[in-house]
Amino acid sequence: MEALENDRFLRALLREPVDVTPVWMMRQAGRYLPEYRATRARAGSFMDLCKSPELACEVTLQPLERFPLDAAILFSDILTIPDAMGLGLYFAEGEGPRFEHPVRSAADIDRLGVPDPEQELKYVMDAVRTIRHELHGRVPLIGFSGSPWTLSTYMVEGGSSKEYSNVKGMLFERPDLMHKLLDTLARSVTGYLNAQIAAGAQAVMIFDTWGGILTPRDYREFSLRYMEQIVAGLTREADGRRVPVVLFTKGGGGWLEAMADTGCDALGVDWTLDLADARRRVGDRVALQGNMDPTVLYASPERIRQEVVTILESYGKGSGHVFNLGHGIHQHVDPEHAAAFIEAVHELSAPWHQ
Amino acid sequence: MEALENDRFLRALLREPVDVTPVWMMRQAGRYLPEYRATRARAGSFMDLCKSPELACEVTLQPLERFPLDAAILFSDILTIPDAMGLGLYFAEGEGPRFEHPVRSAADIDRLGVPDPEQELKYVMDAVRTIRHELHGRVPLIGFSGSPWTLSTYMVEGGSSKEYSNVKGMLFERPDLMHKLLDTLARSVTGYLNAQIAAGAQAVMIFDTWGGILTPRDYREFSLRYMEQIVAGLTREADGRRVPVVLFTKGGGGWLEAMADTGCDALGVDWTLDLADARRRVGDRVALQGNMDPTVLYASPERIRQEVVTILESYGKGSGHVFNLGHGIHQHVDPEHAAAFIEAVHELSAPWHQ
Repeated sequence: MEALENDRFLRALLREPVDVTPVWMMRQAGRYLPEYRATRARAGSFMDLCKSPELACEVTLQPLERFPLDAAILFSDILTIPDAMGLGLYFAEGEGPRFEHPVRSAADIDRLGVPDPEQELKYVMDAVRTIRHELHGRVPLIGFSGSPWTLSTYMVEGGSSKEYSNVKGMLFERPDLMHKLLDTLARSVTGYLNAQIAAGAQAVMIFDTWGGILTPRDYREFSLRYMEQIVAGLTREADGRRVPVVLFTKGGGGWLEAMADTGCDALGVDWTLDLADARRRVGDRVALQGNMDPTVLYASPERIRQEVVTILESYGKGSGHVFNLGHGIHQHVDPEHAAAFIEAVHELSAPWHQ
Repeated sequence: MEALENDRFLRALLREPVDVTPVWMMRQAGRYLPEYRATRARAGSFMDLCKSPELACEVTLQPLERFPLDAAILFSDILTIPDAMGLGLYFAEGEGPRFEHPVRSAADIDRLGVPDPEQELKYVMDAVRTIRHELHGRVPLIGFSGSPWTLSTYMVEGGSSKEYSNVKGMLFERPDLMHKLLDTLARSVTGYLNAQIAAGAQAVMIFDTWGGILTPRDYREFSLRYMEQIVAGLTREADGRRVPVVLFTKGGGGWLEAMADTGCDALGVDWTLDLADARRRVGDRVALQGNMDPTVLYASPERIRQEVVTILESYGKGSGHVFNLGHGIHQHVDPEHAAAFIEAVHELSAPWHQ
């Protein structure tokens, strides 16, 4: 493997000195880019796009052609694992993800196997290999997965949900079943992320999109515990470098301390926290990734710069911060505004690293 | 006015001794009750129901006929104020609230007047008077309003929203306009709540449903500040008793300390916080209202009792806790489960008050 031209993303995740604050954007390969929409139209369905390593590579690289981003992130979906388990993932027009066979009973859970990443999920590993090759060492490649709890919400509800009554019903009434399902998922995610690392991912991120709908007790027991299990089972070195792990629980601002104790390297934080507070709370245990409100990208470039200044000031001096949005970039954002954002981070962060 | 038969709700909000922990449920007059659905069908539209003092009284009292609740809450909608400002509130089938005339420009904001509660909102005051009379002093009556920020989100977006791009656009680009709108709303809410108190409300609650979508800085500047302005302007005594004020910011768990410093008497808290932590953080400044996940009501009565035990233990000994759900009761809950919940709170809380 060739040496990285730009490794400031990996360095910041490990709290090593950097020249400027690295930046990438959640969902940076997405619908706000006309070239993405063109590839998506050629691909057919969203899952067709995910399942074609060549097209997944193409859209992964698109934002890097436009912007001096400090990392690439695998283009894929968090629901590839349940799909590989045979639940029949599909996307109903304008309705989000759905499963043909939701998981509701002990028998449904018993039936679930741990997918072999190089068999049922080979298309993801092929995408990782293709992207890593095509990056030619420009920037690191991030692999990712949904958290076990988050995957279980979709699997038990059969798709997106407002009340989560089925999955919480299982959690409240049959915690034994819930734990069995989450353990199967944790083992699946561990194998999946390790395979991504073997295929070339240089950092991995676990998205716990729905951890924030739980009580603190249930979060620890049903979400955090399984992320900790995954972190403990991950390959932490590849090509002679540490592979950093980032955990992100949306709405998990109250639990940063516990998240920082899982053995991960960094935490994603949304915009409902001040980075200064977050940094004080996690100390030097982990780096922080975030946390601009993605809606700011609808504002003028001048206003975007002002928000970047505020967030840089809030984090303060030194390494350990990866600039990002607190959630995925919105689809109607003008790409020129994303460009202004990324430029502002690089330009305005230099003094904080002197 | 007759003396209250049961005043433990008011006493707990003021952290005065009680025999058992008082309990009520957000949205306790609602679709989970067949008798509510029957009245709603007779009324016509949802707003017809809100605008009929007799029918609003009927549905307000329905849950009290079934359950030994410790408070009644006015049946109304948080969007009555913008409707009274002439924005033309309507409910599109299955789509939530909409306004015919959203507020988007300086001219739109200049045009907004502060409604006279006994004129444009007389139907609300008539409902308060009718309910108060029909309660015959059984339990206290809670009045309420949306917070200025929350009302502004609906007014600027023209209804519910996912991204809040219009209202955040105004906040980012034209904070001067945003402040003007919020000040008009704060004055309107103050007059509206004072009129409810004059009409018979014995406690008031401000629902800041969308404060949690802001950064901590913006929350303080655009939401909390205006709630503080309202609290400072409220009549705090009626019938020789203090009228407690409760603030509730959904997802506002990170900001309890600041909320407790507004001069309010109590804070509503959702289930993403442990009450023990919340109590430690606010000290003896305010009481706490909450915080069971409403989804627990889908579980068995036995499991509901178990959750009640956990929450009572978390709050611990002494007064200052009003038991409630962390959000409105879901529409498919079995009323028998709500009964089991309320019974459990009264029965199991007694030892904590000895």
